[in-house]
Amino acid sequence: MGRNCIVAQSGGPTAAINASLAGVISAVKASENYDKLYGAIHGIQGVLRKNFMDLSELDEDFIERLSVTPAMYLGSCRFKLPDMNEDEGPYKEIFEVFEEYSIGAFFYIGGNDSMDTVAKLSAYAEKIGSGIRIAGIPKTIDNDLLVTDHTPGYGSAAKYIASSIREIAYDTYIYDVKSVTIVEIMGRDAGWLTAASVLARNEFSEAPHLIYLPEVNFDKDQFIKDLEHEFEKHKNIIVAVSEGIHDKDGNYIAASTAKEDKFGHAQLSGAGKALEYLVKEELGVKVRSVEINVLQRAAGHMASKTDLEESISLGSSAVSFTEAGETGFMTVIKRLSDEPYIYEIDFSDVSKIANEAKGVPVSWINEAGNDVTDELIAYVSPLVEGEVDGYYKNGIVDYVPIPHLVK
Amino acid sequence: MGRNCIVAQSGGPTAAINASLAGVISAVKASENYDKLYGAIHGIQGVLRKNFMDLSELDEDFIERLSVTPAMYLGSCRFKLPDMNEDEGPYKEIFEVFEEYSIGAFFYIGGNDSMDTVAKLSAYAEKIGSGIRIAGIPKTIDNDLLVTDHTPGYGSAAKYIASSIREIAYDTYIYDVKSVTIVEIMGRDAGWLTAASVLARNEFSEAPHLIYLPEVNFDKDQFIKDLEHEFEKHKNIIVAVSEGIHDKDGNYIAASTAKEDKFGHAQLSGAGKALEYLVKEELGVKVRSVEINVLQRAAGHMASKTDLEESISLGSSAVSFTEAGETGFMTVIKRLSDEPYIYEIDFSDVSKIANEAKGVPVSWINEAGNDVTDELIAYVSPLVEGEVDGYYKNGIVDYVPIPHLVK
Repeated sequence: MGRNCIVAQSGGPTAAINASLAGVISAVKASENYDKLYGAIHGIQGVLRKNFMDLSELDEDFIERLSVTPAMYLGSCRFKLPDMNEDEGPYKEIFEVFEEYSIGAFFYIGGNDSMDTVAKLSAYAEKIGSGIRIAGIPKTIDNDLLVTDHTPGYGSAAKYIASSIREIAYDTYIYDVKSVTIVEIMGRDAGWLTAASVLARNEFSEAPHLIYLPEVNFDKDQFIKDLEHEFEKHKNIIVAVSEGIHDKDGNYIAASTAKEDKFGHAQLSGAGKALEYLVKEELGVKVRSVEINVLQRAAGHMASKTDLEESISLGSSAVSFTEAGETGFMTVIKRLSDEPYIYEIDFSDVSKIANEAKGVPVSWINEAGNDVTDELIAYVSPLVEGEVDGYYKNGIVDYVPIPHLVK
Repeated sequence: MGRNCIVAQSGGPTAAINASLAGVISAVKASENYDKLYGAIHGIQGVLRKNFMDLSELDEDFIERLSVTPAMYLGSCRFKLPDMNEDEGPYKEIFEVFEEYSIGAFFYIGGNDSMDTVAKLSAYAEKIGSGIRIAGIPKTIDNDLLVTDHTPGYGSAAKYIASSIREIAYDTYIYDVKSVTIVEIMGRDAGWLTAASVLARNEFSEAPHLIYLPEVNFDKDQFIKDLEHEFEKHKNIIVAVSEGIHDKDGNYIAASTAKEDKFGHAQLSGAGKALEYLVKEELGVKVRSVEINVLQRAAGHMASKTDLEESISLGSSAVSFTEAGETGFMTVIKRLSDEPYIYEIDFSDVSKIANEAKGVPVSWINEAGNDVTDELIAYVSPLVEGEVDGYYKNGIVDYVPIPHLVK
C-alpha cells in the first residue's frame, strides 16, 4: 500500500471545480501508488482542523454526478498563509497533519490565492526536505490565471452568459419600441466573461450590439454616442458590460445610492444600474438593466461539456504528475489548435503563476473600445461546446448532497 | 376549402406562449374546416396594420422547435381597445380586415389585457351578428388568471426559479461564515412565482428558509426577528421575496436611490436591495441580494415539459372549440387530481376572466407570513415536472429564427 492524499478546494464557486475533484478522486482510486484520499472541508483550514472526509469509497455513479455539481463539494475558505520566514507556525502544523495521515501528495483546486498557498507549501516542503508532493489545479470563472490557455469554469460561465444574452434578446425583440438593455456581467479586473457574450450573436441578431471591458477606459459621452449610432441601425440595443468598467482615472462606473437609512450610508450600485440611469436621462428611451449575478458561476445545469472534460483531466493529470515525481506545479491547458480544437494537459511552475492576473489582450478589443475581435471569438468558441445531461428530481435540478456543508 | 384564421400574441414573454402558438398551428393545419393560418405581427396592432405572416406552411420540425422557443414568435403589443360604445372605429377596421382575409376565427394568446381584447371583440361580433369565432388562450408567468387552474408559462418560470434558488444555495453553503442571501422574484401583485421557490428545498437544505409574498403585509422589524430566529438553527439563510412586498399601508419595500445625476432624480431600487441594506445595518452579517430578473420568463432552456404540453393543448383545443361553434371563450385547465396529476382542457366565458386577478390564497401562507403551506406545494409540484431537450448550436441555446422582429 502507498501513502495517502489530501484534496481541498478554495476561492469562489464554479460549475467545473467539482469536475476537477472528480478527476482527482478517480485517479487516486485507480492509482497503485496512493491509498486513501481525504477531502479537507473548507480548504487549507480543513487541513489545520483535521476536518476530513474519506473520498476513496465514493462509487462511480456518485463521482459522475459530482462532476456536474456546481460550487464546491468540500467547501471553500479565504485563508492566506503567512510568509514562512516570518511565521512558520501554520506550516509546521500542516506538515504535522500530513505526517499523521501518511500523506504523499496534497492537491489544491482554486484560483490565484489558492496557487499562492500551493507555491508557499511547496517552497516549505523543499526547505524542510519533505518528499510530499504539492500540486495546484486551476479553476476560476474569471479566466485570469497565467500560463494555462484558459481556466476550468470559464467555459461553462461563458456558455451561460452567451445563452442568457440570447434569451434576453428574444425577450427584448418582441416589442415594437426603441429600447436599451444593459447586461452587467462579472469580472472586476478582467473582461473575459463579458467578452464571451459575443457568442450570443447569430445570423439575424447582433446582440450584444456593444461590449465594454475593464481592459480599456470607459467614457460616458462616447457610450451615449455609441448608442445613438446603433439606433441608426437597430430598434433594440443590448449592451454587455463588465462590472469592472472604469473611467480614465480608474473610478468605477457606479451610481451612488444615498438611501433613507438611519446612518445615512451611501451604497454603491453597479455599472448596469449606473448606465441604466444615464441612458434614461440622456436618451429618454425605454431602458432596463439586468445583472447576471451568481447564477453565471453556479448554473451547473448549463455547464460546457468541454469545460467539464478538461477539468476532470486537469484533476486526474495532477495525480499522475505527482506520481511521476513532480511537485510545486499547477496543471495547465496547452492549446494546440483552435479549429479543430486540440489541447493537451501539461504542468507549470506554480510560483510563476500565483498572485498574477491575465486580462483580455487589448489587441482583441476593437479600436473604438466597444467590441471584441475575431481572435477573441476564435479563442472562446471551442470552450463552450457540448452539453451535459442535467440531473433533475421532481422537476428541479438535482446535485450530489452536501449535508456536511449545511447547518 | 374553409375560411382562414388569424393568431396573435400579446403581453409579456413566457417560455410557453410559443408552445400554444405551435398548438394552434398544428390544429389549423390538421383541420378540415379551416384553410390558411395568418400570424399577426405585434398583436392586435398587426391585424390593424395587416402585418401578417403565413404560418400554414411551417413544417413539423419547425413547429416542434417553435414550441420550445421562449418569448413571442409573433411579437407583442400593449394595446387596449376602447369601449365600443364610445369609439367603434378600431372594431370596424378589425372586422373589415377579417372580412378581407376571409377569417373564420381569431385566436389571441395572452394574459389579462389580452383577454380584455378577446371579450370586447366577441361582444362586438355578437352586436353586429358576425359569425367569426373569437377565442382566448391564456399565458402569463404571473399565474393570476381566474377560472383556469393555472396559466401556461407559470410552470416553466416556477421550475427555473426553484432550480436557480437551489443553485444559489449550493453557491452559498460553501463558506463557513454567517450569511443572508435575498433573492428577489417577479410578481408585483401575486406571489405565485415567489411561492414556487419552496420547491428548492430537499432533505438536507431548507433554502429558501423564509418566503415573503405580496398577499400579506411585510414588517421590517418582524423580518429581522425572523432572520435572528433562523440564525439560531442555520448558518446561511436564503430568503425568497416577491418584488411586490409592501408594508401595512401599501407602500412597496424599496430603497430610494438619490444618485449623483444632473437632475437629482431619485430612483427606486427593488425590494431585494432594500432588504440587503436593512440586513447590513441591523445584523451586520455578510449579505447579498440576487434579482432573478427577465431570465425567469425567458429561460426556454429550462422549460417544464408539463407546462409546454399543456400550452400546446390549450392552443390546439381553442381551434377545436371554435370548430364546434364556440366563441367568446378562453381555454382553461381543469385540475382533476394532484397526485397522480390529472387535468383536462375546457373553456370558459372570457368576459368573466378579463381584468380580474387571482392571488395566492391567504390560507396557503403560514400564520407568521414567512412561508407557504403544504397545499401550495401540492398545487405547484406537478407543474414543474419533466424536461425538454434543449436545442444548442455551437454550444449556445438556439431557438427558431425571428428576423421579422429584429431591425
